[in-house]
Amino acid sequence: MREGKIFVVSGPSGVGKSTVLHALLQNRKNLYFSVSATTRPPREGEEDGVHYHFVTVDTFRDWIARDAFLEYAEYVGNFYGTPRKYVEDALAQGRDVVLDIEIQGAIQVRRKAPEAVRIFIAPPSWVELERRLRSRGTDSPEKVQKRLLRAKVEFQTAYAYDYFVVNDTVENAVRELEAIMTAEHCRPDARMESMSS
Amino acid sequence: MREGKIFVVSGPSGVGKSTVLHALLQNRKNLYFSVSATTRPPREGEEDGVHYHFVTVDTFRDWIARDAFLEYAEYVGNFYGTPRKYVEDALAQGRDVVLDIEIQGAIQVRRKAPEAVRIFIAPPSWVELERRLRSRGTDSPEKVQKRLLRAKVEFQTAYAYDYFVVNDTVENAVRELEAIMTAEHCRPDARMESMSS
Repeated sequence: MREGKIFVVSGPSGVGKSTVLHALLQNRKNLYFSVSATTRPPREGEEDGVHYHFVTVDTFRDWIARDAFLEYAEYVGNFYGTPRKYVEDALAQGRDVVLDIEIQGAIQVRRKAPEAVRIFIAPPSWVELERRLRSRGTDSPEKVQKRLLRAKVEFQTAYAYDYFVVNDTVENAVRELEAIMTAEHCRPDARMESMSS
Repeated sequence: MREGKIFVVSGPSGVGKSTVLHALLQNRKNLYFSVSATTRPPREGEEDGVHYHFVTVDTFRDWIARDAFLEYAEYVGNFYGTPRKYVEDALAQGRDVVLDIEIQGAIQVRRKAPEAVRIFIAPPSWVELERRLRSRGTDSPEKVQKRLLRAKVEFQTAYAYDYFVVNDTVENAVRELEAIMTAEHCRPDARMESMSS
């Protein structure tokens, strides 16, 4: 059986990552999208195990102690993490796993799962990213400028990623993501084992 | 403009590499297939600059001295080499370049053009490779066994390749080659430059 692989996908706020990943899932039904654990309380309509695994701070701390996370972080007083178990179960079934996490998390995953493939999704230009952030209409002009600045800072770390997908159109971005997934399954290690006889 | 990339494609005799590369060229018209220089005399129907660049031993020696080859080798008393110039011209035009060369040559290219992407084309199994070699009907049983043994020796070096494409069907092999080419154009270096503003 073909082994599953981990694909870490990061990208700045406003780049359209969720839309691209949603479209990718339509083409590759067998993908497992990792569900994060969090200590924040569920919002209206959020289901445990679907949107997040909702856990207590004690449980979260216990999982950290047992090295049960591929990565974790704190954000505005709440903890978020990627539990190893679900990822490993999916890989064992031969499914590819997508981790939608930000850059700090991607660096942690690199340490715990060095074989993971890291993909950075970038906007076609800074002007276009600004336009997308403004057009969402959810942020004040100051907040948009702050997000843009953060995006430029994050961008400096994108050299550490294996691939750099430009989200000019969703179709192109999905086509490139699929090509990357297909290509990464052509790496020698896993394949050569099946030819050893 | 998108920069061109070099793709080195190797594989054992009988694996069906020519068929796969021919099919690939149908899908990617803009590919440049490198034409080797050789000191062997042209055969019936072979055109200079199309099948080979036919050169004298003196010219070949001169080109070696001027470091004008990406790789070269001797085979049954004749010299064969990949001239840099045509490859560099194609790259400068933004075309991807395919070098169809054997493993020794691939190792030389790695030294002279470390950014080249190396792809090994493998048979689905040794039994199938033997079947393909026999079915060509061009080799004696002893020659087939010799080719098989050489293939197994070459296979040991396939770990040094970036990708490993199994030619189970031509369609699958071409699909994987195209995915690899698309994915390799998503590498950060070239792309990040275009986003620096």
